[in-house]
Amino acid sequence: MSAAYHHPEVASRPISDALLAELRAAFGPQLSTAPAVREQHGQDESSFIVPPPAAVVFAQSTADVVTAVRRAAWHRAPVIPFGAGSSIEGQILAVHGGISLDLGRMDCILSVNPEDMTVTVQAGVRRLQLNEALKRDGFFFPVDPGADATIGGMTATRASGTTAVRYGTMRDNVLALEVVTATGEVIRTGTRAKKSSAGYDLTRLMIGSEGTLGVVTEITLRIHPLPEAVSAAICYFDTLDAAVRTSIAVTQLGVPIARCELLDANTVRLVNRHSHTDLRESPMLLMEFHGSPDGVREQAEAVEQIAREEGGNAFEWATHPEDRTRLWTARHHAYFAGIQSIPGCRAITTDVCVPVSQLARAVADAVDDANGSGIPYFLVGHVGDGNFHIDYLIDPRDDAQRACCERLNEALVERAIAVGGTCSGEHGIGLHKMRFLDAETGAGAVDMMRAIKRALDPDDILNPGKIFSRPAAAHAGSICIGNVGSDAHSPSEAS
Amino acid sequence: MSAAYHHPEVASRPISDALLAELRAAFGPQLSTAPAVREQHGQDESSFIVPPPAAVVFAQSTADVVTAVRRAAWHRAPVIPFGAGSSIEGQILAVHGGISLDLGRMDCILSVNPEDMTVTVQAGVRRLQLNEALKRDGFFFPVDPGADATIGGMTATRASGTTAVRYGTMRDNVLALEVVTATGEVIRTGTRAKKSSAGYDLTRLMIGSEGTLGVVTEITLRIHPLPEAVSAAICYFDTLDAAVRTSIAVTQLGVPIARCELLDANTVRLVNRHSHTDLRESPMLLMEFHGSPDGVREQAEAVEQIAREEGGNAFEWATHPEDRTRLWTARHHAYFAGIQSIPGCRAITTDVCVPVSQLARAVADAVDDANGSGIPYFLVGHVGDGNFHIDYLIDPRDDAQRACCERLNEALVERAIAVGGTCSGEHGIGLHKMRFLDAETGAGAVDMMRAIKRALDPDDILNPGKIFSRPAAAHAGSICIGNVGSDAHSPSEAS
Repeated sequence: MSAAYHHPEVASRPISDALLAELRAAFGPQLSTAPAVREQHGQDESSFIVPPPAAVVFAQSTADVVTAVRRAAWHRAPVIPFGAGSSIEGQILAVHGGISLDLGRMDCILSVNPEDMTVTVQAGVRRLQLNEALKRDGFFFPVDPGADATIGGMTATRASGTTAVRYGTMRDNVLALEVVTATGEVIRTGTRAKKSSAGYDLTRLMIGSEGTLGVVTEITLRIHPLPEAVSAAICYFDTLDAAVRTSIAVTQLGVPIARCELLDANTVRLVNRHSHTDLRESPMLLMEFHGSPDGVREQAEAVEQIAREEGGNAFEWATHPEDRTRLWTARHHAYFAGIQSIPGCRAITTDVCVPVSQLARAVADAVDDANGSGIPYFLVGHVGDGNFHIDYLIDPRDDAQRACCERLNEALVERAIAVGGTCSGEHGIGLHKMRFLDAETGAGAVDMMRAIKRALDPDDILNPGKIFSRPAAAHAGSICIGNVGSDAHSPSEAS
Repeated sequence: MSAAYHHPEVASRPISDALLAELRAAFGPQLSTAPAVREQHGQDESSFIVPPPAAVVFAQSTADVVTAVRRAAWHRAPVIPFGAGSSIEGQILAVHGGISLDLGRMDCILSVNPEDMTVTVQAGVRRLQLNEALKRDGFFFPVDPGADATIGGMTATRASGTTAVRYGTMRDNVLALEVVTATGEVIRTGTRAKKSSAGYDLTRLMIGSEGTLGVVTEITLRIHPLPEAVSAAICYFDTLDAAVRTSIAVTQLGVPIARCELLDANTVRLVNRHSHTDLRESPMLLMEFHGSPDGVREQAEAVEQIAREEGGNAFEWATHPEDRTRLWTARHHAYFAGIQSIPGCRAITTDVCVPVSQLARAVADAVDDANGSGIPYFLVGHVGDGNFHIDYLIDPRDDAQRACCERLNEALVERAIAVGGTCSGEHGIGLHKMRFLDAETGAGAVDMMRAIKRALDPDDILNPGKIFSRPAAAHAGSICIGNVGSDAHSPSEAS
């Protein structure tokens, strides 16, 4: 692959012969330096092209994670936790080189406790696998970012998605963690109790820390009973604004809607082509209601009335499980429908989340900007939360297109922050939103985050180069700026 | 006051002349060293008797907090944030001496945003004051620890209380904070957006940190629409166990009950005497239902049926707002009813929270222990969360009684931890639960907490001596063990 674009954080540290030899001795066939394996672990759903990690360790247990982290810590080499590779902001990219630590084989569901509605899983368990297992006991795990991500990855990025409007995000649904620290120590945070005020909330500190403070190896989650009744409905609108205003009214009236997704006409067109659906190609809300049969009916009636006032069409219902599954699968494939619509393209995704009262204006301004750019895009939104994405479809080698999208995102984020919103509702900071963190929380809060990072990982081995921009003179001497260094065992770069 | 008991953490650092002079110059009448004022700021609802702070600063603005913290930081003197003084585990006690920073005068409600259902308040706003103001717009702030605490104090202790079963705790209801750091810098954490994945969750880190990582000065909260219908009901049971089993079944069936409080016969007797109520003196559940009229009826019917199966009596209803207020006021006064029932007594309060499936056994064992002790006690529980309190009424000067209660609490906590519970559901660690933190989360997690504390407050000026036990050789040289030191301006101790 010829890499036209390197992220400014790219500054690989050389991996020493000794470390590779130690890992090979410890892990045997669980270690790979094959180019294809490294490439696969060096690319996520972001548009960044950076050199892959020097090696991949496939952990099969917490003990494996401990071994890998301890060896890496001894040699001060970066360790990048890897789940399903579905991160969107470059979280798993080896910008400082080092070892990708793949937890995908740690996929055991360790215990299900129906009485307390909790489950404990290894970090590599995937969302769909978990729900398949829970279904037998009449439960489900609601957090649904679309991709079939690992629970560990979802924890690390504080994922949310389509159901957060009703069930909350990973922040709300994780009770306790097992974490391997930067020194390779195993710690536990939280308990199975519903609440606690015992000491600092390390669980919440780890959730969303993107692998920079520890490697999450086990997660205890809240689970929820499968709702007695579920209905999904589509409502078409003539304008995007009418759809957004409907979602705002639904939220403000406190209807406990389980999903409230906005799709613009571009998205519907892409979805139709990709998933062979025949949805009307106009703005729509795709909704789901959970509850008792009466409760679902009540909610749906309330929403239908609001939609009608905004010029929405009568609901089209999908009450059969298969129809619902087809509809939500199509929605979840919107992203792939987008990037597969133009050969070789990648998506640059915006992710602002604003107070709901500010949503209509935020969406309208974003759409104006996007239309003016001439760059193909589509828009989807978890609008009940005030969160929406514009996905620009760019040629990743076209610097001008990339720069244009980044400018548009910058303007979008600036407007979101000005009305009390955030640069990232659910995708995290990764490599992509670093420069917004100061603007959003102020330098003082970012300094506090950096102080915590330094305290818990003084040698900066855990997923370095993420969340925080590199201070001007940082790491001087300890890394070589540019590609992987001259160490004989560091693999040659693919760029 | 003759202090028979000093907590092992008592190790006052001397306050220098220079600091007191600087504070006097900066704050004038907002500074007090009057013995009565210091005593009032040196005692909370815990049973610990320790020397009061050297002085009290009454902050009227964030700028005042900055000034006080900067001056204290310069002199390495402890600063103890003070709200309403209603903490239960000694959080506001000046165990290392220093300055009490009273935020009670910072009581402005800064903005109410009905459209987004958020409110921003200064830290000294009290819970009842806030709800009085929100009522006008048709909203309420649900978190209800009983005491009329300040929102700042509730944030600092991660408070919850009677409504957490439905509306969550402070963890779930705080969106954003303004915090003054240990160096006197003002930082902001979080935004008004419903969710975010932008960087470390400093908001959640500050919530429950008991003033040891920063002084919370402003809080943005979620508020909720006043429910259309509210009903409260009392249900009496012949045994405590039957009441507990009812609450477990209600929780496991997912009834969205708004309050589900357990009172043992002792509590009811104390409440009757204190609040002149004529409740039947047997174990009871005191419940509240929120929703649409139909929803409330549905919930109540479901719970009544469960209760009947456990031998509960027919519900006694309190549908009139005045009756409900009287009932909940009586419940909230249970604590004071207890400590006023024996002249001069103080309460030692247990606070375990266990997975709901383990609650019946935990309560039964605790009651057996309490009955065997011969020490007067009463039991209340936020049983929908698995959280309950045994309040032992002791003579604070009776070392044998105190030691006995501590042994019983230790056994209770040990059993709770063994079944996946926590030593503190809602009161925090303070001075009292320190020794359980290691057992609950393991030394590794406590080391991580200590590392964060050191990183954010290297000179240990923010509420020192709380949450963590003093390591054997810590502070050597920088403090004098015993009472306030020999500095000419340090007030003489009252003990």
